[in-house]
Amino acid sequence: MSAPEIDRLIELLAKLPGLGPRSARRVALHLIKRPAQLMTPLADALAATAEAISPCQICGNVDTSDPCRICANPERDASAICVVEDVADLWALERTGVHRGRYHVLGGTLSALDGVNPEDLNIGKLVDRAKETAVLEVILATNATVAGQTTAHYIVERLASAGVKVSRLAHGVPVGGELNYLDDGTLTAAMKSRRPL
Amino acid sequence: MSAPEIDRLIELLAKLPGLGPRSARRVALHLIKRPAQLMTPLADALAATAEAISPCQICGNVDTSDPCRICANPERDASAICVVEDVADLWALERTGVHRGRYHVLGGTLSALDGVNPEDLNIGKLVDRAKETAVLEVILATNATVAGQTTAHYIVERLASAGVKVSRLAHGVPVGGELNYLDDGTLTAAMKSRRPL
Repeated sequence: MSAPEIDRLIELLAKLPGLGPRSARRVALHLIKRPAQLMTPLADALAATAEAISPCQICGNVDTSDPCRICANPERDASAICVVEDVADLWALERTGVHRGRYHVLGGTLSALDGVNPEDLNIGKLVDRAKETAVLEVILATNATVAGQTTAHYIVERLASAGVKVSRLAHGVPVGGELNYLDDGTLTAAMKSRRPL
Repeated sequence: MSAPEIDRLIELLAKLPGLGPRSARRVALHLIKRPAQLMTPLADALAATAEAISPCQICGNVDTSDPCRICANPERDASAICVVEDVADLWALERTGVHRGRYHVLGGTLSALDGVNPEDLNIGKLVDRAKETAVLEVILATNATVAGQTTAHYIVERLASAGVKVSRLAHGVPVGGELNYLDDGTLTAAMKSRRPL
């Protein structure tokens, strides 16, 4: 019914995470009402971002400069590398400001089912970085999922010969969490890692 | 933390209907992972659509041709004009295929609170169209809301002198609806408009 340009736009929007055919149509209609004020700026922002970004050759972060501004920042602690699955996880940690060191983005997790092998992830470079004398600690911040923990275990093995301290994020009761609503795995982990007061 | 281009993109995405800051970040991260495969095509689709679309001078529909392909289609019944608030409503009716006539898109509803007056809506052109001899019926398909019904009443008054039949969509129990869960207004309307079997 509608124009092929609009159909194509809806089709692309519907593939975005969190959007389906109905919400994609809603977004398209919203943009169509004010093409010059809404649609063109979004098109320009997307084109500018696609043009500007590139993966950091050191850590795998995505930024408009290479090395990324975290790797290039001399104020960031070069002795600690925090290993994350994804750029999204890096952003989440950066929002907390808790990690003052560098990062290493794996680009996913090992998965035999999906055919993701170690050489598909950014692990080789991590091993090289861990061998640098400046690096004292590798903090594994993969997700607390089976895939994330499998990947963490594999990295621990690979780093065994690098002579670097390897740690992982603590598991336990989330801040603000109620025991009542927590799963058994989390409660078990929290009990096992209990700390003296 | 992230690049200004990415921040700007997230800011624009967060303004889309159904998206907020969190889901906008998620969409941006999804696009960032594969700029050439996902981000550039979406930028191009948006730019192409913004470039191609224009409002139909006859009915107010948005299409890549003017008059739109409904107004330009000689197979559509020129005697019946269905009046809708928005292009979204026109699309919804077109999906059902129940209306074989033309449309007229008002571009909103009258609203004293929001300062929307009759001259802000596409009503003048509707009155002109209703006076054409080919037009026999105007079907008011504004929403069954206070604003939609107020607008419909106003249009009925304006069309009084046009010598055209004016009708509106039936109100009643939605198909598949359970009386138990319906509001009083709908039930009252359904009872008042009951039909002999």
